[in-house]
Amino acid sequence: MKEDGIGLQKIIRRKRDGELEYLPDELTIEEPLEIRIGRKPIATTMRTPGHDEELAAGFLLSEGIVRTRGQISSISMRGDNRVVVELTSGVKSMLNSTRRFGPISSSCGLCGKTSIDAIRQNLPAIRSTDIRIDIETLLSLPEILRKAQNDFARTGGIHAAGIFSVDGKLKIAREDIGRHNAVDKTLGRAFLDELLPLGKHLLLVSGRASFEIVQKALAAGIPIVAAVSAPSSLAVELARESNQTLVGFLRQASFNIYTHIERVILDFRPNE
Amino acid sequence: MKEDGIGLQKIIRRKRDGELEYLPDELTIEEPLEIRIGRKPIATTMRTPGHDEELAAGFLLSEGIVRTRGQISSISMRGDNRVVVELTSGVKSMLNSTRRFGPISSSCGLCGKTSIDAIRQNLPAIRSTDIRIDIETLLSLPEILRKAQNDFARTGGIHAAGIFSVDGKLKIAREDIGRHNAVDKTLGRAFLDELLPLGKHLLLVSGRASFEIVQKALAAGIPIVAAVSAPSSLAVELARESNQTLVGFLRQASFNIYTHIERVILDFRPNE
Repeated sequence: MKEDGIGLQKIIRRKRDGELEYLPDELTIEEPLEIRIGRKPIATTMRTPGHDEELAAGFLLSEGIVRTRGQISSISMRGDNRVVVELTSGVKSMLNSTRRFGPISSSCGLCGKTSIDAIRQNLPAIRSTDIRIDIETLLSLPEILRKAQNDFARTGGIHAAGIFSVDGKLKIAREDIGRHNAVDKTLGRAFLDELLPLGKHLLLVSGRASFEIVQKALAAGIPIVAAVSAPSSLAVELARESNQTLVGFLRQASFNIYTHIERVILDFRPNE
Repeated sequence: MKEDGIGLQKIIRRKRDGELEYLPDELTIEEPLEIRIGRKPIATTMRTPGHDEELAAGFLLSEGIVRTRGQISSISMRGDNRVVVELTSGVKSMLNSTRRFGPISSSCGLCGKTSIDAIRQNLPAIRSTDIRIDIETLLSLPEILRKAQNDFARTGGIHAAGIFSVDGKLKIAREDIGRHNAVDKTLGRAFLDELLPLGKHLLLVSGRASFEIVQKALAAGIPIVAAVSAPSSLAVELARESNQTLVGFLRQASFNIYTHIERVILDFRPNE
């Protein structure tokens, strides 16, 4: 029934010509994952199973609970739908004393922060460097990410996130039914491999760029965020303040740049 | 700067022919909304401002905190980004004694439920009736909802949900940057108008159908859920158990039926 995040199911399909078929169909698997720190449940998220340790690591990073790999002593699965993170004792005591969140869902990245002020993590802005990406490289990224996606073509219902170097090489790509989870898995892998901060990299997401996507990239030190679809107002605002370049509607030959255009090598040619 | 959930912003656009433009662009507004019951913050969600009282009502319904209109004594905005719900005393004391959730985000509908078991609300299944919808009506719904959407064409970044009667009349439609919020606003309006249970209606969402979308429809007693995009495995599972008809990929002339096909009037014609 399950294989690589895909489930099988018999459906009735009406084709465009009006004909009806009864056939097997593939569905993206959605199941709850409970994230615990030690014995304490801190989040339940609806995710596509797989890479759950990365999801947990990326989630703790995005939430500002950990900053360095050394703060996590172990991550392990308990059954299919629970992941337990053990923190080193210093982090744990800090967490207990400054505990600002209740249960959290990583599918939104916001839960548990009952105060509006608590949404912004006040992460430091990206340091200015001369990292730049050229247009042809930028335009090539969605196709590279799509080719790395195994499941989308089969189910049409899964998001992807990818970390690229600014010369267009795909470093890590992950899929999930939730956009935030796909980002957490991708960043979590980089975090576990001690690749942070990712100051010479770009994060590409297959859908829209919300505030939280930009904030997750910021937690990983990523200076350029690109989305295949629209950004939100608050995503643009945060990117501007955080010295992050935000690109939206990156499709085929076109894109929009919302903030910090200086990282994209633009060849301004007046119409001749 | 803000008008009807849209913000203005100057962007650099690269057109398909390679030409660059510097022009104003419209963005979907994303801002946090804190939902309080009395003085107690119970959720913070990233939403598109507008219809916030409906969002709060739909959220409390979806979460099983209220079941009837009479359990809410008032809903009022405090400033731009906080909504305060006052419950009648009976509900409040029940809530205090059985309180099973911490802070919750309505953008995921799951937060605060740190136990995996707590995700399913064990709502009663839809009672069997002879409610049915015909194919032509079903196929006409996405276009009707799209026409009711003001903002999507301008920003390309907003979801919609609509409640339809089974003869294809649009009763309520709402937009939001979050799919779950659009559903909560739509169901919240119906709840406040005391239209529940919506046993002769259909819920259409512009994106995918997750477990939580199906569960929200169930909380409102809606027997048919249709989505323009893919459902998840758990959405299909819940719909099957709850006696709900689940339709996916409802686009142009085609669709898939995943569960309880008996509510769609199918004219099986063997190929002639």
